[in-house]
Amino acid sequence: MLMKYRLYTPGPTSVPEATLLELAKPVHHHRTAEFRAMFAEVQKLLQYVFQTRSTVYSITGSGTAAAEAGIINALAPGQKALCVVNGKFAERWAQVCGTYGIEHKDLKLEYGDHATPEMIANELKAAQYDAVIFVHSETSTGTVCDLEGIGKAVRASGDTLLIVDAITSAGALPFKMDEWGVDVTITGSQKALMLPPGLGYVAFSDRAWAAVEKNKTRQDFYLDIKKYKKSMADGDTPFTPANTLLEAQVVSLRMIEKETIEGVWKRTHLIAEAFRAGMKALGFELFSKYPADSVTAVKYPAGIDDKGFRGHLKSKHNIHIAGGQGTMEGRIFRLSHMGYTDAYDCLAAVAAVEHALKALGKPVEFGKGVAAAQKILAGLFA
Amino acid sequence: MLMKYRLYTPGPTSVPEATLLELAKPVHHHRTAEFRAMFAEVQKLLQYVFQTRSTVYSITGSGTAAAEAGIINALAPGQKALCVVNGKFAERWAQVCGTYGIEHKDLKLEYGDHATPEMIANELKAAQYDAVIFVHSETSTGTVCDLEGIGKAVRASGDTLLIVDAITSAGALPFKMDEWGVDVTITGSQKALMLPPGLGYVAFSDRAWAAVEKNKTRQDFYLDIKKYKKSMADGDTPFTPANTLLEAQVVSLRMIEKETIEGVWKRTHLIAEAFRAGMKALGFELFSKYPADSVTAVKYPAGIDDKGFRGHLKSKHNIHIAGGQGTMEGRIFRLSHMGYTDAYDCLAAVAAVEHALKALGKPVEFGKGVAAAQKILAGLFA
Repeated sequence: MLMKYRLYTPGPTSVPEATLLELAKPVHHHRTAEFRAMFAEVQKLLQYVFQTRSTVYSITGSGTAAAEAGIINALAPGQKALCVVNGKFAERWAQVCGTYGIEHKDLKLEYGDHATPEMIANELKAAQYDAVIFVHSETSTGTVCDLEGIGKAVRASGDTLLIVDAITSAGALPFKMDEWGVDVTITGSQKALMLPPGLGYVAFSDRAWAAVEKNKTRQDFYLDIKKYKKSMADGDTPFTPANTLLEAQVVSLRMIEKETIEGVWKRTHLIAEAFRAGMKALGFELFSKYPADSVTAVKYPAGIDDKGFRGHLKSKHNIHIAGGQGTMEGRIFRLSHMGYTDAYDCLAAVAAVEHALKALGKPVEFGKGVAAAQKILAGLFA
Repeated sequence: MLMKYRLYTPGPTSVPEATLLELAKPVHHHRTAEFRAMFAEVQKLLQYVFQTRSTVYSITGSGTAAAEAGIINALAPGQKALCVVNGKFAERWAQVCGTYGIEHKDLKLEYGDHATPEMIANELKAAQYDAVIFVHSETSTGTVCDLEGIGKAVRASGDTLLIVDAITSAGALPFKMDEWGVDVTITGSQKALMLPPGLGYVAFSDRAWAAVEKNKTRQDFYLDIKKYKKSMADGDTPFTPANTLLEAQVVSLRMIEKETIEGVWKRTHLIAEAFRAGMKALGFELFSKYPADSVTAVKYPAGIDDKGFRGHLKSKHNIHIAGGQGTMEGRIFRLSHMGYTDAYDCLAAVAAVEHALKALGKPVEFGKGVAAAQKILAGLFA
């Protein structure tokens, strides 16, 4: 039976057809006036998504490359960072600090928990840090934190930099780099920005850039952000960029501009709300204490096996969702609400979960989940 | 008037239509059995192109990222490299050494010149080096060197590693990593491998891997090749790969496999020979003393302006060729014979140069260049 392929993993995410077709166009050279005009438009639109006047640098690489560039350019070996560690990605940034000799205190929280502005304020009172590093939306647990409040706490503390992994937040959740006092924003192309993997983006506030300039000990070549700044003066990149991905990025970013970033935030929020309502109506519990609108992590009740559940969705419904990572494997499943996804994608996901429960021999009242979701989706059309 | 777009720059190069269409397919997730099967095929085909039994690691990034990974994993700060510096890219790898505290003696040659096996043997007799780093085909000058001979000279010297930038050689020129004793091979996706930019590839011989294992001082996260090796044991990558580019890479690599690598080498050689013959027949001189078959650099005679010449080809013939970089700007133009290019692309290039000469008011006998090229192209069909 025909069942369309639906990619609901929290990255890579589904890419608009118009963007994919852009990727099928003949390859052009990148040292041209046409490239520079396109690259300037990418810049303008990324600044809109980040809500910043700072330059957003494009790095050909994974989100991890962009995160490493953000951390190691702003912090020198021997400087000290407070790492909020509440999931797999937060752990990775603490490891980056360790690799580069950046001292770090890890504020370890349970998976699914988050740091509050008060906790950050207290830590910054108790000791001096050059930066606070944390994840706005932790993809591994579907957990958000109060970035605006944390921004205020960090700004109140003095000169400490605020370095934020916005990989599954920029373009999905309200995110205002300048207004909220974020110093380094990190994201990737394959989440809310509706592109395949291959590009990472990183922006530095003026304060962060001053730290970059002071950082003389940095040993790195490809991720040396000063090289990117120098090339950006000519509207260019220091190394051959993934130029076809950049050309396609324009197409996706124009869609965000047309919908407006506030429109994207609202859609993402209501779709996440609807999915959560659908899951709760079917008897599921959420994993996170503070669910992010970009990724929902749902606990498996006793008697539902991860492989059986996700395998059924894949083989019978052609729907791909993610499981848990590391110690969360088998305990949760995760589903994205980022990027190229709409009300009926959400409804299909809830409906497919109903069918999967039935197929796995669990009690289910068909329509109970989708009805709960549908009531909330009505808000999108009000 | 309709004139098809022709990309003849030495990277990015033209990409096969079938490969571009692969890039327009819906995005899939990368932690799946399907991805691992595809990735295993990429591996097998890259090993065929490199002519090696060693693992070829895929790094999402520019060729520079792959080169940095090759150099900094194999060499620790304080170790000593002999860098053969005869062009812009060779200069870059010496800079990478400098950035990371790897001592380097630069064997500086004129642009367009190359190092001989004897020169390398003498240098290795005069001093002890942990590695020799050089560029097999220097893209900035269109210059090749005798890699097989240099391999013998380095092997005869003892334990010195041979690190080769094969960015515009692997998949274009005869290149036999294992047989010729190359220890680290570096290349990128957007040259002879018929893909847009975005992926770098690097392979280590067993000897090079032993050096990687001994290198305990390395400070790097994204380019730490040990992470790639660990993930490769599961048929996977440590960070989200540019998976759609990898899926498209399979399509292009299968074309190489079908033509055979020896067939690709022969085609590239005869097309380069034909183009060089065409240029000489029209009164041009080559820039390089040792022309590479992958890129031809041609000297402008007095009275031909780079901007006027290349601008005419672009605006009237829709043909994009490259100029010179750095001090070579305005003195040469460069044209690629790598990858998705055939006999009639070569003929079109020679013909367009004839038309451009006429348009710029230079004396030209129409047909003289193409006739000279055509005689050599006959070898492709013999």
